[in-house]
Amino acid sequence: MAGLLIRNVQLTDRRRVDLGLAGGRIAAVTHRTQSSPTLPFRTPASRNGADEIDGSAYVALPGLVDAHLHLDKTLWGQSWVSNGGGPTRREYIAHEQQLLAAASTAPIAERAGALLAHIRRQGTLSLRSHVDISPEFGLRHVEALLALRADWQDRVTLQLVAFPQTGLLSRPGTLELMDTALRLGADVVGGIDPAGFDNDPMGHLRAVFGLAEKHGKPIDIHLHDPGELGFWEITRIIEMTKAAGMQGRIMISHAYCLGSLDEARVAALADRLAEAKISLMTAAPAWGPAPPVALMLKHGVTVCCGSDGIRDAWSPFGTGDMLERATAVAQRWGWATDAELDQAIQLVTQGGALALGLTDSSAARGLTLGAPADLVLVAAQEPGEALTIPAVARRVIHRGALVS
Amino acid sequence: MAGLLIRNVQLTDRRRVDLGLAGGRIAAVTHRTQSSPTLPFRTPASRNGADEIDGSAYVALPGLVDAHLHLDKTLWGQSWVSNGGGPTRREYIAHEQQLLAAASTAPIAERAGALLAHIRRQGTLSLRSHVDISPEFGLRHVEALLALRADWQDRVTLQLVAFPQTGLLSRPGTLELMDTALRLGADVVGGIDPAGFDNDPMGHLRAVFGLAEKHGKPIDIHLHDPGELGFWEITRIIEMTKAAGMQGRIMISHAYCLGSLDEARVAALADRLAEAKISLMTAAPAWGPAPPVALMLKHGVTVCCGSDGIRDAWSPFGTGDMLERATAVAQRWGWATDAELDQAIQLVTQGGALALGLTDSSAARGLTLGAPADLVLVAAQEPGEALTIPAVARRVIHRGALVS
Repeated sequence: MAGLLIRNVQLTDRRRVDLGLAGGRIAAVTHRTQSSPTLPFRTPASRNGADEIDGSAYVALPGLVDAHLHLDKTLWGQSWVSNGGGPTRREYIAHEQQLLAAASTAPIAERAGALLAHIRRQGTLSLRSHVDISPEFGLRHVEALLALRADWQDRVTLQLVAFPQTGLLSRPGTLELMDTALRLGADVVGGIDPAGFDNDPMGHLRAVFGLAEKHGKPIDIHLHDPGELGFWEITRIIEMTKAAGMQGRIMISHAYCLGSLDEARVAALADRLAEAKISLMTAAPAWGPAPPVALMLKHGVTVCCGSDGIRDAWSPFGTGDMLERATAVAQRWGWATDAELDQAIQLVTQGGALALGLTDSSAARGLTLGAPADLVLVAAQEPGEALTIPAVARRVIHRGALVS
Repeated sequence: MAGLLIRNVQLTDRRRVDLGLAGGRIAAVTHRTQSSPTLPFRTPASRNGADEIDGSAYVALPGLVDAHLHLDKTLWGQSWVSNGGGPTRREYIAHEQQLLAAASTAPIAERAGALLAHIRRQGTLSLRSHVDISPEFGLRHVEALLALRADWQDRVTLQLVAFPQTGLLSRPGTLELMDTALRLGADVVGGIDPAGFDNDPMGHLRAVFGLAEKHGKPIDIHLHDPGELGFWEITRIIEMTKAAGMQGRIMISHAYCLGSLDEARVAALADRLAEAKISLMTAAPAWGPAPPVALMLKHGVTVCCGSDGIRDAWSPFGTGDMLERATAVAQRWGWATDAELDQAIQLVTQGGALALGLTDSSAARGLTLGAPADLVLVAAQEPGEALTIPAVARRVIHRGALVS
């Protein structure tokens, strides 16, 4: 069977290998040694007329993971929309809901489809998207995203979070819509600021955990609540995770509060998060507090990254480039050494895969024998330099085939 | 005389115009009106066989201004260097000085020249570069940058700051080297943390103002000193500026301290900065406090932006793209409305030109009749969208000619 052979490419651990790809998997990994740098390469793939890529100028990364974006909100590829709304989160949301409901706004399939095509070319091959559920939208967004997921199933791995953007208990009817969305195929139960937005923290969390238990699905909670309020909520989430036996199935997204409290308390909480196997997602915002990533990693917490909004009613910014996001983390925290840059890359590969439970992915398994042949070739001298190379210069391979 | 005609292009004020460029200047600006969008265009340029560009898909910005970078430190285009040093500023500097002095490090002309070519293609047509002066380097960096400036005089406007990176009074011999550098042609007197780094704030400032007075040149002080320390130093700089009658000739770079004190005090200080016509430069760091840009602008302070280090011993990051830097400001401060995005663009055009005293520049004058024909065409629907378009998609015009 024909495949693809990538000769003499550098892995993130600095080893140089020949990678044989066949049947959508990594079918051969041949280490190059100092003594035989031009070792003739023989694999089932190359013996059967495989295409070849000279990998000598590239670093090969696993397929990138975007652990948090809002596909249904994007205005990618659309006419310019002047941003407005705010200044409170509730006002931003109201402004956005109005815009997304407008007859003049293109269908989700068009906007989100254009964005999926764009981010896939940049190397994002797995992603988790939140999908708004509200009394106004009903299940329209979920239905559109489920259809999009089906259309794209051979091109990206897409998890959908049923997300009560306008509130859960505070918006009658939303809980029932969430339940239906999960029955229809949404993968994850979403939540949003149980205290600061929904104003019923224990009720909100009980409802979210209840849906998760009923449907046997994981949880992903948007937590913007600041300072002590967010800290208290995280403690409740840890307790409920352990009580429900849901270790390894919970993600807290944003968790800004962890960036504004004293380090000793945050470190102690990190230990408890790690023990409960709760993962954290950060978009590394420049504008305010954010979880101290290195401290979290040091205490064993799984950390991943997401684009959050990409060109939507909240902001015109965002490219969906996960290496740019890793760079944002590095710059947010002043990372510059090779080890720190490696760590940044791990957030958007292994960290994302572990947090999303994508065990059979190149991001989780690394570029090892038998792993899916999903990879990103970046023209770089070193893994760390890959963070500095513009997305247009990458070559993306999905299931063994070059993405155009 | 042949020129260049740009038809139907959008300016930052949303008007559509035909721009005729001739003799390195904007020779004609014809407003398009709703009633005559295809008005035949006649200029001295077009009558004489001017080349034409269909500007209908573009927004035209003035040439971009990078008000603060370190050309002599860049490793642009070089082999990967693992970052190290730190964690204190003094240790980073020591690490860097060692690297830059190493025989294996390419000459400044090669590294800085490659970076100049890169940033010019992105639209930076005016810049201010700091140049290290120290007992170890002597005048070597200044001489290299003076030669580079001469080489590039027809391609970019380059101001050089004699910068005592390793200390001024605390490093015997540096003051004399600074004096010589200014005599040789450095444009600006630099300073660095008069208190926190040089440990003699009044002595340092007197020395800097003394050099400025002796050579009739402006001042640009790196001020990283945090909180109350930095605040106190800014107050001293204001007093000395007024005493020396140097209003409009002083820039404070970074001024992180303004991001960590209470708003009322910062606002009052902003009034005093505006009164003394002292400008501020920010690189909009994501990792810590920074001057609140909107507040500064509201109080009449001239604010500009700079890249600071671009791929050097401090960090592998940085692209030199000033629209990306304007985006960093917008993201740092949560700017998203059209008015805020316009403001972000102004920081890297008009703000930079005013702060650097580049009165005869397109950035200072706007794209008006008689201004230098220095502009950046960005394929965007709106000025704000220009911030979101990758640098590779721009067309840059310098003195009326397309930059390759």
